[in-house]
Amino acid sequence: MSRIYINEVAPRDGLQIEAVFVPTQDKIALIDRLSATGLAKIEATSFTSPKAIPNLRDATEVMQSIQRKSGVTYTALVTNLKGCQRALECGVEEINLVMSASDSHSQANLRMSPEQSLAQFAEIVAYAQGSGVFINASLSTTFGCPFEGTVDEQRVYSLIERLLETGVQGITLCDTTGVANPAQVKRLCQSVVARWPQVPFTLHFHDTRGMGLANALAAWEAGIVHFDASLGGLGGCPYAPGATGNICSEDLVHMFEQMGVDTGVDLDALLAVSETLPDLVGHDTPGHVVKAGKADRRYSMPAGA
Amino acid sequence: MSRIYINEVAPRDGLQIEAVFVPTQDKIALIDRLSATGLAKIEATSFTSPKAIPNLRDATEVMQSIQRKSGVTYTALVTNLKGCQRALECGVEEINLVMSASDSHSQANLRMSPEQSLAQFAEIVAYAQGSGVFINASLSTTFGCPFEGTVDEQRVYSLIERLLETGVQGITLCDTTGVANPAQVKRLCQSVVARWPQVPFTLHFHDTRGMGLANALAAWEAGIVHFDASLGGLGGCPYAPGATGNICSEDLVHMFEQMGVDTGVDLDALLAVSETLPDLVGHDTPGHVVKAGKADRRYSMPAGA
Repeated sequence: MSRIYINEVAPRDGLQIEAVFVPTQDKIALIDRLSATGLAKIEATSFTSPKAIPNLRDATEVMQSIQRKSGVTYTALVTNLKGCQRALECGVEEINLVMSASDSHSQANLRMSPEQSLAQFAEIVAYAQGSGVFINASLSTTFGCPFEGTVDEQRVYSLIERLLETGVQGITLCDTTGVANPAQVKRLCQSVVARWPQVPFTLHFHDTRGMGLANALAAWEAGIVHFDASLGGLGGCPYAPGATGNICSEDLVHMFEQMGVDTGVDLDALLAVSETLPDLVGHDTPGHVVKAGKADRRYSMPAGA
Repeated sequence: MSRIYINEVAPRDGLQIEAVFVPTQDKIALIDRLSATGLAKIEATSFTSPKAIPNLRDATEVMQSIQRKSGVTYTALVTNLKGCQRALECGVEEINLVMSASDSHSQANLRMSPEQSLAQFAEIVAYAQGSGVFINASLSTTFGCPFEGTVDEQRVYSLIERLLETGVQGITLCDTTGVANPAQVKRLCQSVVARWPQVPFTLHFHDTRGMGLANALAAWEAGIVHFDASLGGLGGCPYAPGATGNICSEDLVHMFEQMGVDTGVDLDALLAVSETLPDLVGHDTPGHVVKAGKADRRYSMPAGA
């Protein structure tokens, strides 16, 4: 049986853009419940400036207070050397760096060029190497940029090469604004798997235009087994108000489990955690399975039939 | 360039379960606007008992008043011989019969057994043959039944064989309650395309559990080029309150066009029609692209970047 591995990003990518600050104890409880579901990895928080992302200003307390479960990797987003130091002090097992593949998104989101990101990564990697922490980098706008449009695939390959040269060990290819299509995903994933068979590539999709699970399917068909996903589909797209955000973890698990692909996740347990989200964030979530039930749900015959 | 063909089912499958009766003139205007978008086929209405489906009690007037556009096939659902006679009097170019692959859904939805459906089809086909009308049959619960669960694939193949023996010319395989998964879809579609290469098979998916577009992708990869879809994703699932219904036409067109597959549809025109739906049905629709814009949408850089 084939197997995929899911990195649950709701505690970081989801909660960071919510209108409400989710209380620290609720965050910890959420992560602890997620830890019990069989997820391979949880992106627990972001060690960044509290001014930049006030919702995650409690990163240290969250990371120090969660109950680490054996078999689950706890990762955190790190945006600079200081953040990396804070993350390592809290004993994260993995750090996730982020840069953009396109110049304009890089400027808009990070206020620096991709070259500056790479230079900064070299500094962070030099610091982190030897600590035993796994170093992942997320490449935003891999499949297209909301300002520039098309991102050349050769540019993506070149940035992957440079990230690996810098000492990055894993790479997440991000469809940041939900513009990727399955044909593009399959082509690019087949290429990176063929060129760097030893590198763990993770795919990060948004469901902004409804193609999220189709893209995950295409990536899997191309040999990808690592996926980012967000409980309830939390996490938005600042450029598409009203649109859905990250692909929904429980919908992704449900699809692959239905296909006979092992996700390691107890779907019922994950759905039970998803059901707690509306109380936590104050609104309905875009997940499908949590509303419709699993495909094997049975109904009673209508009276009189 | 490969090409797919879309049967727009919102005027029938969408409007039939809405809480409001959409006025006849609005239905006609909707179909006329859809006709101008390049859709291959439109299921315009259902010739059934007004008591069974009051929302479509104006079937005759709708079918007689729409402006037929060359290149568009106008089809209608027909549930018995009387409905077939009414449909033919209105000059439909195709009739769509419906039966269930599972006994209990057949009883619940049609109050007859699949055997009785087949017998009734024989009568309708005998009447319709010679009129030049194309005869399609939709097979509900092909991928699973909300009451029984799994539907044996051999049973599906056997029913397809019997439908063809009856004189049915095209067959729509329906995932009536959104339980199909891409692996199952690919396997079954590959089988039917290999066994009956001359038969036009249409796939009808629901997005109840978020797998709609992934299933369409899997079917296309297996050689299917005909799809049912519903503008705005109208059309629900009576067994999954709050869940989305049919796959959304404009999201399907968008995905395939982004993949470089020709749909024949002017997506901007289709999106413009979709934008009229909330006024027509009194609620928001679950379509993605109508909210987020197409993948090639560009944004201005934020101030200060």
